[in-house]
Order: sequence, then structure tokens, then C-alpha cells
Amino acid sequence: MSDISNTKTLNPFPSGRSGGALLVIKIGGNIIDDEAKLSSFLKLFAAIDGPKILVHGGGKLATQMAGKLNIPQQIVDGRRITDAETLKVITMVYTGYINKNIVAKLQSLHCNSIGLCGADGNTILAHKRIHPDIDYGFVGDIDSVNTSFLKTCLSNEMIPVIAPVTADKNGQLLNTNADTIAGEIAKAMSNLYDVTLVYCFEKNGVLMDINDEESVIKKINRNYYEQLKSPSRADGEVKIFAGMIPKLDNAFEAVNDGVKKVIIGKAENIKELISGNSGTTIVNE
Amino acid sequence: MSDISNTKTLNPFPSGRSGGALLVIKIGGNIIDDEAKLSSFLKLFAAIDGPKILVHGGGKLATQMAGKLNIPQQIVDGRRITDAETLKVITMVYTGYINKNIVAKLQSLHCNSIGLCGADGNTILAHKRIHPDIDYGFVGDIDSVNTSFLKTCLSNEMIPVIAPVTADKNGQLLNTNADTIAGEIAKAMSNLYDVTLVYCFEKNGVLMDINDEESVIKKINRNYYEQLKSPSRADGEVKIFAGMIPKLDNAFEAVNDGVKKVIIGKAENIKELISGNSGTTIVNE
Repeated sequence: MSDISNTKTLNPFPSGRSGGALLVIKIGGNIIDDEAKLSSFLKLFAAIDGPKILVHGGGKLATQMAGKLNIPQQIVDGRRITDAETLKVITMVYTGYINKNIVAKLQSLHCNSIGLCGADGNTILAHKRIHPDIDYGFVGDIDSVNTSFLKTCLSNEMIPVIAPVTADKNGQLLNTNADTIAGEIAKAMSNLYDVTLVYCFEKNGVLMDINDEESVIKKINRNYYEQLKSPSRADGEVKIFAGMIPKLDNAFEAVNDGVKKVIIGKAENIKELISGNSGTTIVNE
Repeated sequence: MSDISNTKTLNPFPSGRSGGALLVIKIGGNIIDDEAKLSSFLKLFAAIDGPKILVHGGGKLATQMAGKLNIPQQIVDGRRITDAETLKVITMVYTGYINKNIVAKLQSLHCNSIGLCGADGNTILAHKRIHPDIDYGFVGDIDSVNTSFLKTCLSNEMIPVIAPVTADKNGQLLNTNADTIAGEIAKAMSNLYDVTLVYCFEKNGVLMDINDEESVIKKINRNYYEQLKSPSRADGEVKIFAGMIPKLDNAFEAVNDGVKKVIIGKAENIKELISGNSGTTIVNE
């Protein structure tokens, strides 16, 4: 990951982590699809002190809108195949409806925010995914994050609110996974700040027992993660819910690439997540 | 018009027109609805030197989308009645689809742009229209323009691309006329820059004879405008096409409030409009 070389920035920043602490928080469909939950979360988010970046996913709205518009949706390996009509819907819903409603709500809470997709300020440059077997359509894989621009926003007390749409260098918009965007932003911004990345999802944290919300694992380091992943139980299954492994692999990739820590938990508990009193913390130890 | 008092800005600017020249260009549906025309215009726009702001209207896409979604549309006195479902469509189409495609295209042309609605960076604060007889729904009338924020963008070589949606102080998004947005931005920015406001429309300029595209009036000052408006012909009609009078009244309001000049003409001729070789120029003389 590197800055976009052709981006002009009049505010050069010294290298090193001179910016202090930075929070990168990702919220997903379980919050976005629920007006009351979103509203409560935004109040908590607005009250957090210091530099912060919010990355939001898409939720069910795009699928609902595609349905109303009779655009058939195809999901392969959990990824939406994004044809031209689907991209149009995604752009409308993610960068328009969801993003601007979040920004307007945050402004009303005196949190001076600015809604961005990857094209705005060249925040995120991507390319169309190349896959040997599957044509994902207009799906973007990230090439670079414009850290200078994001730092300019933060230095001017602007909170970036980022929609999961990027663009390639030819001006083609691309549907891009919000978890990946949050991770790439967190890693890139680690050159300038001490970054904490918070992945909000529907559970209290990484659970030892998927059916017990109280079985949150408070802290996972590399050694413990290897133990958790090892199929040591009598039935040959790993100790933690297998569905968490891709999320945890991403988290370890982030801490390996400079992110100070990754916290996984519920958006409703964002204050407690940040203070270390809720959720699971992943550290590079 | 005044700056938003509660907006924090770390880059204070001296008062007075220290910023030099600024272009505020408004394009409408006749360009936005035509992919080839929009693409040609954006190439010309990207090539213009110096600080510039692009304001775009909505075109037919929102009406088409509302039709596909079976949302009935009601127009009163040329204004769309914006109920909650229509506002959702407008937000999706204007701030999402149109705005982000323009920004991505401009980035590919090495024009570092940023797409904004009124909520982003508190660019434009508005209130829901109050009318004694008609409930326009979620339609916004502008209270203030955040000139400090726009200047911060321009000083960082970011070109604002503004969609015709604003927000009130409670976080409610509002459908807002793009001509009005361009005019209010031009007037507010006149405190900091020498502003030229360009209204692009489907004619070569203000025509003496509506049926003759060659009958462009090159320059209109107040005295001449009074003459043009006076019903002095034998048939009692004014000399210019009556439909132009609201546009010209707006233009004179702008030059009266500090805008250096207003130019009216075709987007295809943007280069010639700016150099004074096409269109109609309105000046406060």
C-alpha cells in the first residue's frame, strides 16, 4: 500500500506516527438496516474524541432496491456479482442514500463529517478484480489509499465517512468490500497514526462457544490464535467458530502491517470496545 | 448569507477577495442525461485552469427511477413535490449515481475533485420550505454556505462537485434547486474571490429571438435589461423570451450581491463562455 503518486497535496506531513491515535471503525448491515440502532450508534460515534474514520457497508437495501427494479442478483462465494445495473444500484444506495443520511445525522450531532467514496479526493484507487474462473463484474481490489488526503480531512477536523465503492484510474466505479476498505485504510494510515481498527458485527466478540454470547475471548495474540485454530478437540473441530477464521486472518494481517490493535465486537458497545471493556482485542504479540 | 458559525475550521483565511478568480459552473439535465455530452463537457471542465466549483442538476434519471419504482411524481409550479420516497430516489440518483460518476470521470482526467451534498462538511445548511398554500415536502431553502470549507477544498487543489441536495440542522436531507445552489455559492464565495458564475443551459445564450440561435445578446447591464423587459413592441410583449426573465432576475441578484459577472450559454462552449466569445454576460453596471 502506498500513497497515490499523482495526488497533489498542499499540506505535506512529516513521516512517522506524528498524528497520534486514530480510530478506524467499520459498521455493517446489522446496524445500517436498523434505523434506531444506527441512530444510537451515530450518537455514540459522534461523542468519541479525537481523529476517527467511519467505514460503512451496504446492508440489505441494495438487494431490496435491485429486487424492486427487477435486477437479478447473483452471489458467488459470498460475493455479489456486480453487473452494470447492479453497480448502478450499489452506487445509488451506498454512496447516495446510506452515506449522505449518515453524514447529515452526524452533522446534526455536531460531528463535522464528510462522505466519501474511493473516487472523492482519490481516497482509494482500485482495479477491477481479475479471477481465473469467475467474472465478478465491477468489483474492485484496492491498489492504494490516499493517506495525505485523509490526513488533510482529519487535520481540518473533518471525519471521513466512507462508502464501499472505489474507482479505477479510468473513472470506472467499483463495488468493494467494506471490511477490506477498513483494513486497507487502517494499514495505510498506520504510517501516520497509531491506528486502532474496530470491526463491529452482530456478536459480542470472538466467542469460544458460538451459542454463548458471554463466552467472549478478551484477547488473542498469535500464539493463542494458533492454539484456537488447531483441531485439538476430540471431534477434530477447531476451538472457535470456523466462520470467524477469515475475519481473524484479516485482523492479524492488519496488526502485522502496522495497525496497533484490532477490536471485534458490537457497535452498540463502541464506547466499551474502545476502552477495552468489551469485545475481543487482537494484538501482534 | 453568512458562514456557519459552529463550523470548526483550522485554516482561517483573511477577509477580502484574496483568493483571486473563482469559477462557479452549473450544468443541468441536457448535459447530465447525455453520456457523450457529459463526457465532452468534463474534458473541457478538467482543462480549465484555476479554482472552480461544479454544481450539477438532476436530469431525467430521478423521474425515470421513480417511475420504475412506482413512486408517483407531482410537479407544482415547475417544482417537484418531494415526499419521503421521492427524496430517497433523489438522494440516491443525485448524490450517488450522478455525483460519483462525475467525480470518478474527473479523477481519470487528473482533475482532483470531491463530491459533496450540502451535508458534507456542512457545505450548505438549509431549512424545509415553508409555503402558505403548497406543501412542497422535503424541499430545502438555503440558509448559509460554508465558505471556509469550500476555500479549504480549493486551497488543497480539490474541485468541489456539488449535488442538489442539502440538509437542515436536524440532519434531514432536502431536495434543493441546483440553479439556486450555484447562485448562493457564487454570492457567498464573492467575499473571498472574484467570482464568475456560469449557468449552462440548452441555448447559445439569451436570445433576442427565441427561434434564432444566432440572435444572442452579448452583454446585458441593468439599464438594457429594463429596456428588454419593457413591453414596448406593438403586440405588448417584452423584447426577450419571457421564460428567460426568472433566470435573468437571478443573475442580476447575483451580480448585485457581489458576483463579478454571470455568463449564460451552452456547456459545449464552456471555454468560449469563459473567454467572453460565446453566451450572454450579465454585469452590474
